[in-house]
Amino acid sequence: MLYLVGLGLSDETDITVKGLEIVKKAARVYLEAYTSILLVEQSVLESYYGRPILVADREMVESNSDEILRDAQTVDVAFLVVGDPFGATTHTDLVLRARELGIPVGTVPNASILSGIGASGLQLYNFGQTVSMVFFLDNWRPASFYDRIKENRDIGLHTLVLLDIKVKEQSLENLARGRKIYEPPRYMTVGTCAKQMLEVEEEKRGGVYGPESLAIGAARVGGKTEKFVAGTLKELCDADDLLGPPLHSLVLLGRRTHELEYDYAREFAINRDTWESIWKAEYQGRQ
Amino acid sequence: MLYLVGLGLSDETDITVKGLEIVKKAARVYLEAYTSILLVEQSVLESYYGRPILVADREMVESNSDEILRDAQTVDVAFLVVGDPFGATTHTDLVLRARELGIPVGTVPNASILSGIGASGLQLYNFGQTVSMVFFLDNWRPASFYDRIKENRDIGLHTLVLLDIKVKEQSLENLARGRKIYEPPRYMTVGTCAKQMLEVEEEKRGGVYGPESLAIGAARVGGKTEKFVAGTLKELCDADDLLGPPLHSLVLLGRRTHELEYDYAREFAINRDTWESIWKAEYQGRQ
Repeated sequence: MLYLVGLGLSDETDITVKGLEIVKKAARVYLEAYTSILLVEQSVLESYYGRPILVADREMVESNSDEILRDAQTVDVAFLVVGDPFGATTHTDLVLRARELGIPVGTVPNASILSGIGASGLQLYNFGQTVSMVFFLDNWRPASFYDRIKENRDIGLHTLVLLDIKVKEQSLENLARGRKIYEPPRYMTVGTCAKQMLEVEEEKRGGVYGPESLAIGAARVGGKTEKFVAGTLKELCDADDLLGPPLHSLVLLGRRTHELEYDYAREFAINRDTWESIWKAEYQGRQ
Repeated sequence: MLYLVGLGLSDETDITVKGLEIVKKAARVYLEAYTSILLVEQSVLESYYGRPILVADREMVESNSDEILRDAQTVDVAFLVVGDPFGATTHTDLVLRARELGIPVGTVPNASILSGIGASGLQLYNFGQTVSMVFFLDNWRPASFYDRIKENRDIGLHTLVLLDIKVKEQSLENLARGRKIYEPPRYMTVGTCAKQMLEVEEEKRGGVYGPESLAIGAARVGGKTEKFVAGTLKELCDADDLLGPPLHSLVLLGRRTHELEYDYAREFAINRDTWESIWKAEYQGRQ
């Protein structure tokens, strides 16, 4: 049997009791390590689970999934995913392949950033579609998030923006020369996200949001050092020091923001006067 | 300290290791028992946790939260919530009250139906805002979900519909006479949901969806007996036997449905021919 086991958001103790039992008994344990990361090292997981872990990188999951599924008709294979197992498309592919091979599949759900973000005080009912943002390059600035955010904003909903992580990436030169040398991991911060958002608004001029739009930066959601910082997009461009280490994500507030959400998040404001005055001018009473 | 501890979606082993440690050590353990339920009895939880549980009903959480928070400045109180702690507004109120009283608050996230629904094969990125549906009465048929679904449909997104549960409700007569006699619990099924949706469309005639719209009924998401049934809304009116016991929820498919989502969900179709022909006519290529 193939078990997709969610690990939750933060450390080794965020696995569920059910998940831990499966990990302890499985013939092989894989860790999907490219769509998200935990805030602890692999060795901590291995010693806590009492099991060696095989790291499954993108190449393995996308091109060599039959190795992951080897013998799973007769033995149990645990495939560990940070957060909830169904956060990324890739895992759907793995399940479809398992089905083709006649392998039964079980899922152990866990916390996801999609619900964990509720700790910001924003109501999950008031979120529209979730978007992702990647690191811009000079000649590659994918901005499909802009149209999606516009759709959410038009209805008055919040948008959760998930931020790029780059692990096991090769430089163009190393890629071209076929050298398996990898760059150090990079995690997008709220500051970079806010800057890229404002750059795109300046190019497109669709008035979807601007420097004065209210947003909440989130860091290490679900962990002991979880941190939220509320402010304008302009303020959030320079709030990375307040937020601290990765992972980061950002929520752009919708006009339907409820008084209770505003109250709750004011606690996190960089500048409460700014938060309050923009709230009153642009949001309050516009639900 | 006040700890909001998510219990996940299904049974006693869905608590995280971190959550279980808190429950075992807390001075008092409350279980919020009116916005959702687990699929196991309270006694099972008590014996698994090795702790007595105080049930916190709506009245207690909304009107007597200071009793829950009593002495939490100095002792640990665990407040258990089915799913993820931030699924319902009520818990935001509790946290705000704790803040007023100078009580530190910790959260232990867990799986929520908002991410668990990913097991249906639908991509979480393709969901718009989540809506709720209550049991209609003769003279009370709140249909605000209709406008919300329209907003999602206009953009092409899926809608997750969360279904009413009635626990510890009094009949009008018992309420009027002040008798604390409670009706047996009721859980809305996918069949009732689909019927109510079609009734509202027939009244409003906004063309938001219809008997031929594709949807997926979900039962006991995250549990061992998890079940999905895919079909038209009309088919789902009569699919409760296929789905089995509560809890149920429903997803109405958006036009942006991806080929991979369609493929995955076809496995669950009541009638694969219908699923395929409506998909081809109404969805395919309309992303």
